Amino acid sequence: MNPLLEIFSQGEELVTGQIVDTNAAWLSQQAVAMGFTVTRHTAVGDNLSELVSLLVDIAQRADCCICTGGLGPTSDDLTALAVSEAFNCPLIFDAEAYEQIAQFFAIRQRDMPASNRKQALLPQGAERIDNHWGTAPGFSLQYGRCWFVFLPGVPMEMKHLFQEQILATLPQRFALQPGLLITFKTFGAGESALQVLINNIEIPASVHLGFRAGTDDVHIKLLFPAAYSRQKMMALIDNFKAQLGEFVFAIDGLGVATGDLAFEINKQMIVRQTSLAVLETLSHGLLAAKCMGYDWLLSASYQPLKFEPEPNIDLMVVAKAIAYEQQKLTTADYVLVQLYAGDKECLNNTEKTIELYTVLLTDTGFQRVSHLIAGSIQRKQNQAALLSLDLLRRYLDARSC
Amino acid sequence: MNPLLEIFSQGEELVTGQIVDTNAAWLSQQAVAMGFTVTRHTAVGDNLSELVSLLVDIAQRADCCICTGGLGPTSDDLTALAVSEAFNCPLIFDAEAYEQIAQFFAIRQRDMPASNRKQALLPQGAERIDNHWGTAPGFSLQYGRCWFVFLPGVPMEMKHLFQEQILATLPQRFALQPGLLITFKTFGAGESALQVLINNIEIPASVHLGFRAGTDDVHIKLLFPAAYSRQKMMALIDNFKAQLGEFVFAIDGLGVATGDLAFEINKQMIVRQTSLAVLETLSHGLLAAKCMGYDWLLSASYQPLKFEPEPNIDLMVVAKAIAYEQQKLTTADYVLVQLYAGDKECLNNTEKTIELYTVLLTDTGFQRVSHLIAGSIQRKQNQAALLSLDLLRRYLDARSC
Repeated sequence: MNPLLEIFSQGEELVTGQIVDTNAAWLSQQAVAMGFTVTRHTAVGDNLSELVSLLVDIAQRADCCICTGGLGPTSDDLTALAVSEAFNCPLIFDAEAYEQIAQFFAIRQRDMPASNRKQALLPQGAERIDNHWGTAPGFSLQYGRCWFVFLPGVPMEMKHLFQEQILATLPQRFALQPGLLITFKTFGAGESALQVLINNIEIPASVHLGFRAGTDDVHIKLLFPAAYSRQKMMALIDNFKAQLGEFVFAIDGLGVATGDLAFEINKQMIVRQTSLAVLETLSHGLLAAKCMGYDWLLSASYQPLKFEPEPNIDLMVVAKAIAYEQQKLTTADYVLVQLYAGDKECLNNTEKTIELYTVLLTDTGFQRVSHLIAGSIQRKQNQAALLSLDLLRRYLDARSC
Repeated sequence: MNPLLEIFSQGEELVTGQIVDTNAAWLSQQAVAMGFTVTRHTAVGDNLSELVSLLVDIAQRADCCICTGGLGPTSDDLTALAVSEAFNCPLIFDAEAYEQIAQFFAIRQRDMPASNRKQALLPQGAERIDNHWGTAPGFSLQYGRCWFVFLPGVPMEMKHLFQEQILATLPQRFALQPGLLITFKTFGAGESALQVLINNIEIPASVHLGFRAGTDDVHIKLLFPAAYSRQKMMALIDNFKAQLGEFVFAIDGLGVATGDLAFEINKQMIVRQTSLAVLETLSHGLLAAKCMGYDWLLSASYQPLKFEPEPNIDLMVVAKAIAYEQQKLTTADYVLVQLYAGDKECLNNTEKTIELYTVLLTDTGFQRVSHLIAGSIQRKQNQAALLSLDLLRRYLDARSC
């Protein structure tokens, strides 16, 4: 039987609904993939007696508990105090933790407020988890049947600490039989359209199929049990690949690190030693923003070039002409140009669509694609960035075949 | 004292992290605004004994509990059965509920699967909540000190049932006194530095102070009880404003809609009928992306202009020269130029900092500011976008005084 794990989140902003608890879902995914059975998520506010009673309860019913939040410097951050009361262990000043917090401020040339000293107070017997991403160190300790891990609530810090300092220690503490999780990362089709594509594939009862629709992609997940035949697994994966076709931009779980659409494009641009210049309109800078850190993006400019839909103007022809103009101004190998048709009303009205045109000018000629985008203005912006990038991704994929 | 409310969500897809529990946050916002104190969120999977023990616990400690999920037709939908066991009331066939479910299929000209009959089994003594949006009727019942409301887990159905059939009944059942929430939206200082600024302000015990640190801003929240004196409230708000100074870019809760930094800049740019051109480097398109939908951004370009820190070059002078060049190329009233010092290693190394220079050229001359930015490459990008925008915001604020 799998060890039982609970997620416990602390924060008034969670129980009052000001923020959605994405940490709990993220941590659960990690835990399930490692071979834990996740039994419960609990979120409580900044209330000491609630925190204490919850910690005592969890110590009796779970084997492992990952807790997030409440490690900050302010008076409403109560986690260490609650642990101290619940498990009857005094808070001890940790000089090394204090030094790290002071260092965090020194690097940024900022004065350290006195309140941050509180973050160096850790429950006696706890093991410190260093935080290179913020001021709040985490800590872990065993109480009752349960091993507790306390992490900061800021998602970025929490993820770093979990991945870099907790993940590798879990198989040493618990008898885990992780299944193998394969994730097909797709772009360009919705959840139900993807479901239809794979409807005829027979999936063995022991393999768990799941979907996750995000803002930037849709993931299709296959969780194989620990002892599953490698050969049968590869056959099923091949079957999925064949059915999902070019919607798949990466397959995660097969030993090669994968990322988002821009990350996958980056791999290929580096191999090809190819560079790109971009003219953005509808995506409003977001296409360039998604390529942060990638040197092959030589330049990007945003201009509010929009067109009213007119029967006499072929926007593809216009986009092509602009791409040739842009090519004269840049040393980049490829030029990508984005145009759109629709007025301000179309942009802001969630019921109306915008028509997006993307052309890609490369050494082998023109690639072109148009899409209708619906939804909020933010969705239109984000989809425009992704759809234009996806034209480049499909071109690169096709050439690498 | 406010009545205590808990949120309870059921579903294997929640505890395994396949979906994020947005229902809990949405319901909590509604409840807090009405005058409940939300004490806890709990999510459990499709496990009967977990469900039963949780229901028994909640019946002892909360005045109201809104439960979502587990009302579907399949064998893993266990909510009604759990209620029956926990509160010792048999499940009774509700002919009217059955008729409604049958009707749902009839209207859609689909055959009703036999499994849907289960959805018409409701705990004895429960009041049915009709569902015109799906097949699962909700129900409510009192047990112990707690009034339980069970709603379907599909967000759209849940929201309709809550708003149309529950919301209006709550003030009849509970003595509710909604408070007033004031939010100071700040940028440019961390949570602990802000805490220091307000340390000397005396906050009455009945007013609740809270912090929320996001990636784009830090919110300081004051929750005033229902009967709080308006005059005293305004005096406290003024005190906060004075202490927090120019870190505050908006105050929410006073009747004027507020948004993020770009939203607040937008208000002022419209009033002034002023336009802007931007040259981005470190923010890599993200500054423009944050200004989506705002017409005063006439153009933005991203170029990887970076400089190695050299004692002989004053980057402010370089930025100023570039701003004058940009001004010749644009019809925009203001020109904003961003440069940074640091190599690729500084960018990618979370331990190292990047020095950011922003200059703003306006009709009244130059504004300039430099910052050290630490953290991940994504944080450096995001902070660069915000810090450059904030120079514009502070300039506009200063002129409007």
